[in-house]
Amino acid sequence: MSSSPDTLWINARLATFDAANLAPYGALDGHALWLRDGRIHAVLPQEQALAAFAGGGEVRDAKGAWITPGFIDCHTHLVYGGNRAAEWEKRLTGVPYQQIAAEGGGIISTVRATRGLDEDELALTSLPRLKALMKEGVTTIEMKSGYGLTLADELKQLRAARRLEAALPVEVATTLLSAHALPPEFAGDADGYIRHVCEVIIPAAAQEGLAEAVDVFCEGVGFSPAQTRQVFEAARAHGLKVKGHVEQLSNLHGAALVAEFGGLSADHIEYLDDAGVAALAKSGTVAVLLPGAYYFLRETQKPPVEKLRAAKVAMAVSTDLNPGTSPFASIRLAMNQACVLFGLTPEEALRGTTRHAAQALGRGATHGQLAAGCVADLLLWDIDHPAEIVYGLGTNPLTRRVFRGVVQHEG
Amino acid sequence: MSSSPDTLWINARLATFDAANLAPYGALDGHALWLRDGRIHAVLPQEQALAAFAGGGEVRDAKGAWITPGFIDCHTHLVYGGNRAAEWEKRLTGVPYQQIAAEGGGIISTVRATRGLDEDELALTSLPRLKALMKEGVTTIEMKSGYGLTLADELKQLRAARRLEAALPVEVATTLLSAHALPPEFAGDADGYIRHVCEVIIPAAAQEGLAEAVDVFCEGVGFSPAQTRQVFEAARAHGLKVKGHVEQLSNLHGAALVAEFGGLSADHIEYLDDAGVAALAKSGTVAVLLPGAYYFLRETQKPPVEKLRAAKVAMAVSTDLNPGTSPFASIRLAMNQACVLFGLTPEEALRGTTRHAAQALGRGATHGQLAAGCVADLLLWDIDHPAEIVYGLGTNPLTRRVFRGVVQHEG
Ligand SMILES: [Zn+2]
Ligand SMILES: [Zn+2]
Repeated sequence: MSSSPDTLWINARLATFDAANLAPYGALDGHALWLRDGRIHAVLPQEQALAAFAGGGEVRDAKGAWITPGFIDCHTHLVYGGNRAAEWEKRLTGVPYQQIAAEGGGIISTVRATRGLDEDELALTSLPRLKALMKEGVTTIEMKSGYGLTLADELKQLRAARRLEAALPVEVATTLLSAHALPPEFAGDADGYIRHVCEVIIPAAAQEGLAEAVDVFCEGVGFSPAQTRQVFEAARAHGLKVKGHVEQLSNLHGAALVAEFGGLSADHIEYLDDAGVAALAKSGTVAVLLPGAYYFLRETQKPPVEKLRAAKVAMAVSTDLNPGTSPFASIRLAMNQACVLFGLTPEEALRGTTRHAAQALGRGATHGQLAAGCVADLLLWDIDHPAEIVYGLGTNPLTRRVFRGVVQHEG
Repeated sequence: MSSSPDTLWINARLATFDAANLAPYGALDGHALWLRDGRIHAVLPQEQALAAFAGGGEVRDAKGAWITPGFIDCHTHLVYGGNRAAEWEKRLTGVPYQQIAAEGGGIISTVRATRGLDEDELALTSLPRLKALMKEGVTTIEMKSGYGLTLADELKQLRAARRLEAALPVEVATTLLSAHALPPEFAGDADGYIRHVCEVIIPAAAQEGLAEAVDVFCEGVGFSPAQTRQVFEAARAHGLKVKGHVEQLSNLHGAALVAEFGGLSADHIEYLDDAGVAALAKSGTVAVLLPGAYYFLRETQKPPVEKLRAAKVAMAVSTDLNPGTSPFASIRLAMNQACVLFGLTPEEALRGTTRHAAQALGRGATHGQLAAGCVADLLLWDIDHPAEIVYGLGTNPLTRRVFRGVVQHEG
């Protein structure tokens, strides 16, 4: 590792979300954060830290600010071309979905726009969305493919994601979601497309190291549980983790399937049943709540939050940023909606974008907590109480964003 | 007026919201905007404008950007002290409202925090909220009193609003809302407080020219229709316009009362009945929709949008920015919510923050349209279609904000 000088953050109020700290928000007063080589070296009582640190680097005064871990947006489709505002307007003026689809709308319009851009253009058009999220405090973000739906275009989307990571102080986790929709080239042959995904796209993405995980849209309008299983088996065969868009519009028992494969997360889960909750609890799979899509689609079926809580299933919260059903590049909006629409507490919402979101990306041991050994991704807030981060929108109380120990932005 | 040089904006696509232009968004291509002395001097076909303008000032190239009128946020409680995040958290963790009130929560906690600040402090603590709205394109904004509830504190709130107007390139319309809640000093004596409002506070605000209009919270938990009538009569006697928080939680026929007094606007109106719709139509009173509060309070009764449309009642959209029920300093969020939650079209939402919002502030002839004679408050957008302004959140496609002809912000 590099050898930039250590930093000691003092006079902060820490919302650690440390699993070992049972106080609300994992709050810890009177402690300093010692950063070394991009990691949290130690969290120590301030006097003790100052004595041990003496002369060992730069002491920074947080002046009473709250510090949280950097936010982790664990489910996004951030890389895409075009937008679907005109289609949305049609829906709001009462044009039926069939007509919109016949006029070239729907997910395939985003596929067309995404295929029409090269890797550079795709990264460039996605950049403002990533910057907006980073401005709110996102330090790690997942990005899925799924708007290419050919080998070349799927890999292009993942490379654009990696290019964004290389350009900005942010960590990107890439997910292959080729089983997102049926491309026109395979019209009427979903099984054939799934074979192509399993035999061609997954092996290529794995070999090039372009994806950490594989995702499937398991739904009546997506792919069947049997097809989902095939994709998960191919993923496993190539050493990739799995996760699923499941139980969003109906209950196909996709969450249980994700759990059976020891998957990272089951996402959406509005229609999750008791057996699904039990399956997630047993496998330690994270439940990812995506209230933006629920809101934008005017859904009425809420995810079973109380049952997930009772079963101690970790709940994450994410933007689901995408042009069709959640065009919102705001993780604070997602947290606010998780509270207002789904009944999470502000603490649960914040845990859902820190510790639990880290778990959903297989980074539970190193991300999403203020604890020794974790990455030094920190946010400093001009607030009196952590709930303020989730409660109000429009203004931005984030005063500093620290990525791998380095202050990226002074508010 | 001053004599800064004229400006001619060319190569723009205009969303005029001009009442005389029946195209969607009042769209007009191939026209230039000629600005003089802070007003729109003319809207002319571009070739004709360039010929007439020749040498008359600065020609600015919009490079194909859409231009809309500046946004008008016609219902806010922007000036206040403190916040209510901790109270919100209690509500979300299931603490009953009675207990929250007993512990000092609710509107009275904001009154306490507001009274505790002097005029300077009050302006300073409110400043980030105003800046957030301006960054999204707000050029005219209404601000209410109602957290002072004594003569001195009500006038202090209005003076803080005026101070914000003096400090920033924005126009502020002030409204006296002393009949917002019963102050502790008048506990058990609502009629006595209303007498105090009518005989002391309204005359003083009018004499000092601190308010354009008077507002009342007409509701079971606010003031009765009879008390509202008294306040409206006092307002009229002092030459002030009236408006009302009406039909938010129940139907007390407050909208009809506002209409009877030829009021500017009836605001909230979730419980408005057919007679109320007819009364607003007859008096030309604007219906102000406030989806932020509906969302934050998890209400289920929606305002009668289809009936208002059918009766040709002008609908405005506003943030209702306030710490208790709508802590959202985002007019784009309010427009998005108006579409998603109330079923407005993006065009109606944008008309609701331009032309109709201007009408709601008694500025229909001079604000909220790109038309000759109107103030030169303009927004330039990096978009392909006006619906994009309302559809996505998080990113900000506003590239330039022009106030009274002067570019305030280059994106
Ligand atoms: Zn998704
Ligand atoms: Zn209000």
